[in-house]
Amino acid sequence: MTDATTLTAHELGALIEEIFLNVGFSTTQAGALARVILAGEQDACKSHGIYRIEGCLRTLKQGKVDPQATPKLQQDASAIVRVDAKGGFANAAFELGAPVLAERAHSLGLAALVINDCTHFSALWPEVEALTDLGLAAIAMCPSYATVAPTGGTKPLLGTNPLGFGWPRKGAHPYVFDFATSVAARGEVELHRIAGKPLPEGWAMDENGTPTTDATLALEGAMLPFGGHKGSAISTMIELLAGVMIGDMTSPEALEFLGATNIAPRHGELIIAFSPEKFAEGRGGASLDRAETLFDAILGQGARLPSQRRFAARAESQANGIRLTAEEVALLERLRKDGLKAVS
Amino acid sequence: MTDATTLTAHELGALIEEIFLNVGFSTTQAGALARVILAGEQDACKSHGIYRIEGCLRTLKQGKVDPQATPKLQQDASAIVRVDAKGGFANAAFELGAPVLAERAHSLGLAALVINDCTHFSALWPEVEALTDLGLAAIAMCPSYATVAPTGGTKPLLGTNPLGFGWPRKGAHPYVFDFATSVAARGEVELHRIAGKPLPEGWAMDENGTPTTDATLALEGAMLPFGGHKGSAISTMIELLAGVMIGDMTSPEALEFLGATNIAPRHGELIIAFSPEKFAEGRGGASLDRAETLFDAILGQGARLPSQRRFAARAESQANGIRLTAEEVALLERLRKDGLKAVS
Repeated sequence: MTDATTLTAHELGALIEEIFLNVGFSTTQAGALARVILAGEQDACKSHGIYRIEGCLRTLKQGKVDPQATPKLQQDASAIVRVDAKGGFANAAFELGAPVLAERAHSLGLAALVINDCTHFSALWPEVEALTDLGLAAIAMCPSYATVAPTGGTKPLLGTNPLGFGWPRKGAHPYVFDFATSVAARGEVELHRIAGKPLPEGWAMDENGTPTTDATLALEGAMLPFGGHKGSAISTMIELLAGVMIGDMTSPEALEFLGATNIAPRHGELIIAFSPEKFAEGRGGASLDRAETLFDAILGQGARLPSQRRFAARAESQANGIRLTAEEVALLERLRKDGLKAVS
Repeated sequence: MTDATTLTAHELGALIEEIFLNVGFSTTQAGALARVILAGEQDACKSHGIYRIEGCLRTLKQGKVDPQATPKLQQDASAIVRVDAKGGFANAAFELGAPVLAERAHSLGLAALVINDCTHFSALWPEVEALTDLGLAAIAMCPSYATVAPTGGTKPLLGTNPLGFGWPRKGAHPYVFDFATSVAARGEVELHRIAGKPLPEGWAMDENGTPTTDATLALEGAMLPFGGHKGSAISTMIELLAGVMIGDMTSPEALEFLGATNIAPRHGELIIAFSPEKFAEGRGGASLDRAETLFDAILGQGARLPSQRRFAARAESQANGIRLTAEEVALLERLRKDGLKAVS
């Protein structure tokens, strides 16, 4: 790390945004992309940090995302807020819809944000965290592309279908989780392949449906859902609610549309927001305080709350800047100078 | 099975209702209890069938449920429908709230039913199925009492916190799942204890936090969540949304209130209903048809849809009646004649 570079969040954010502007993204799209990738890097969540930029550029190069898309908001008197991402990335669509979702949830008690026709690559935690900042609890979910076999099956059908949840806390980072409903994220299998390391048992099967610890065979075969039939059922629920119900692609449809898993998938997303204040009305309130009792009991027996490592990394980044390796700085420089020519 | 008895659903339902009326339940409470217990028995879901009657009577005998409670509906222009169960069982409260929830969900796109101050023992699938019958998708969840350690911890804190989901299908039974977010239901551990059988690895720890396969030690210790830290996080989400947020007891609070785990716990319940029609508006509709494509793909690779065994048992019961063993008939007779004297 002798030649590591430390950047402020502002500097890194501006550099990422420049990369996206250079290849033709609009300021709306580039700004939203830069904010979410910066958030990942700042939290040392490397799988959703600057590592993702190449995938975004590759998706553009293959014509699968509209870099100039202007997301369009539709709202009515119902509890459903819709944003048509118009084939752009989900992030700009979320930024447009989130304040309206929050207004509806505060007014009605709960509301849903539907994002349609978006290209999606980001973690869900930046979204549920943004909603906890507005005093809401939130559940977010989306399909991805077919890489996971349903329990009892042998072929890729479900996506890694992430599930995110956030609960607002007073004077503390929110309670946030965000995980794949597959036993591991596809990127983790890929990392094992690159490192030549065997997978843990129970992660995957080969294309014949035989359990395998070989990462290459696993990538040609199927991953397994987390938690056996229960995780498989939750993943199927995500296909139904955040794919079929919102009138958008399921994971098998997304894979068919793309024909590849190395670019960001096209599908929709569903976010449900709840107003704890509204739900507590007439029940003595103080729900945020009662949640703290639960968190204290979890921590008091030596268990952890999710996302604490991320929050610690964020504090470190905010205090001392974001440290990048020489290779990472070189990558960013190359992407800034060469744009789409830098990606295959 | 030579001395087995076959009853029609009508006969068995009437007998169960009589048992509850005899010990002082109102017709509202007794009717709702009989319907849900009959549904369990009819589906060969023995863990939620007539086996549950004794627990209900025990809860009454210990003064922890109001047999004459009249649930009270509160609604306003929001998406939250509330039913105060007034200390009665949840089932009558659900029956009162479900049609109003359905009306709100059809009108707003999604809505929530909050049941407060109820005593709860039933499965969630009868509720989500009732909502699919009204053309809605639904998620149901509730705490129970503290018997499950959060991942990384060693002490009972979370409940077995069931999660239920239903999706309506045209001309077929709905897609329904309903499971404990613990690795197994507490009743299954109890059954292992009675049978003197060791538990599978990974189900439980003893009171010192050491993994155990001894069911007695497990019941004194803590069960584990399903799916490791992911299941633990989902269970915590259920405490937050269906306990804290709705202004009702969490699992540790419910255990403290009751002081025992052999009677039905007092807490609340949260049900979220979605109108697939409303969500599909402007998106080309046909979402129910597209769901069938997904189900076909699951079945086509040899995997199963959840609840199929229950539906097969239901068809059998509807065609040929519900078969009870001589012991079961004797139990029902004793409960009918001796009422609260028959339970300890």
